[in-house]
Amino acid sequence: MPEPPCAPPPNGQARRRQRTHQAFLDAAAQLMAEGRTSASIEEITRRAGVGFGTFYNHFDTKEQLFEEAVLGLLDSYATWLRNVTSELQDPAESFARSFRLTGRLAVRRADLFAPILNAGTEVMFMERGLRQAALADIRAGIATGRFIDEDPEILLVAVGGALLGLVRLISSGTLPGPDRATDALATRLLCLLGLDAADAHALTARPLPPTPDLHWNDDNPHS
Amino acid sequence: MPEPPCAPPPNGQARRRQRTHQAFLDAAAQLMAEGRTSASIEEITRRAGVGFGTFYNHFDTKEQLFEEAVLGLLDSYATWLRNVTSELQDPAESFARSFRLTGRLAVRRADLFAPILNAGTEVMFMERGLRQAALADIRAGIATGRFIDEDPEILLVAVGGALLGLVRLISSGTLPGPDRATDALATRLLCLLGLDAADAHALTARPLPPTPDLHWNDDNPHS
Repeated sequence: MPEPPCAPPPNGQARRRQRTHQAFLDAAAQLMAEGRTSASIEEITRRAGVGFGTFYNHFDTKEQLFEEAVLGLLDSYATWLRNVTSELQDPAESFARSFRLTGRLAVRRADLFAPILNAGTEVMFMERGLRQAALADIRAGIATGRFIDEDPEILLVAVGGALLGLVRLISSGTLPGPDRATDALATRLLCLLGLDAADAHALTARPLPPTPDLHWNDDNPHS
Repeated sequence: MPEPPCAPPPNGQARRRQRTHQAFLDAAAQLMAEGRTSASIEEITRRAGVGFGTFYNHFDTKEQLFEEAVLGLLDSYATWLRNVTSELQDPAESFARSFRLTGRLAVRRADLFAPILNAGTEVMFMERGLRQAALADIRAGIATGRFIDEDPEILLVAVGGALLGLVRLISSGTLPGPDRATDALATRLLCLLGLDAADAHALTARPLPPTPDLHWNDDNPHS
């Protein structure tokens, strides 16, 4: 049966819709990186390179767009962390490598971390892949006796809050040696998690694999 | 010499100006507590109970007002911390008590902590009394050998980030025992700072003085 004229196949329409949606998310991520979440919907649509009316076909409010953009980033970051630690068995070593590579990534990709910093402590409570993965790692550390037997939520806010603080410190550009600082903080956080200092230091002195780049929206269902 | 008619004494004018300025800061703190920093200047002036045109006699932008309100809160908090720890000599004990009382205050005064949470990790870098006091305490701990000899900036972002995470967790209202959680996190942070677990635990198990209330703008030059 011939296709009706002038009606693009549904796949094409869905793809276009996805492209527009992604253009909005990219524009939102850029604006957040510039600290400009007060930008008007008009400016956002201009950045996205789409028509003004399009916005409301995709989002109810500006806040919804910004939140979805941050969630997409967190998903990408969770995927990245899974990839860089997949072969490690020890939860303490996995934590040390995740943390140390994150610090190195934050030096190179301030643009990707700025929206996360902008969202503040809220990111630790967004029910998405990253939070679940972090809690699972902490629980594994407790179960294997590597970490102290404390409420995983408490350990999560400590480690997550310290990481946010470090990324913010790195983003200020005033830190003389961000890699050394990152490793030092990883050592101290391992002590917080229950390791003794010598053990913690041995883990954070190990050679690191090269830092893979974080690809925006790797894990985003809309990309 | 008689006063010129219709010209109020400068003191009266200055007092009125201070009252208006404070009304703006109070309105800003309320709006931040409600997560409504996108409120219009019109709404802010309505809340403050002053005329629309007044705003620009006191602030250049909305952002300037919100920042000044957060700085005022941080100053009040720094004064409060000084008061609750003034008689303690040991920097580790001073840290433990400050942290434990802060957690208890956060349970009772979510309204005061909401604007600080809203400002996010930024609050650790605002060059105001609180940051200076926290750095001084950490340096004292390092100098006396109570804390590990690490870059004070690194220890500050770890402790400050974890505290922000805890306050956010407390504000969610989902924590079954916020006081126990606060004390547990204080213990773990003392381990991060270099104390051994038994020593840390002994400090966070000590009786606490009653939690004094935090008075908004205690230390604000405009109040």
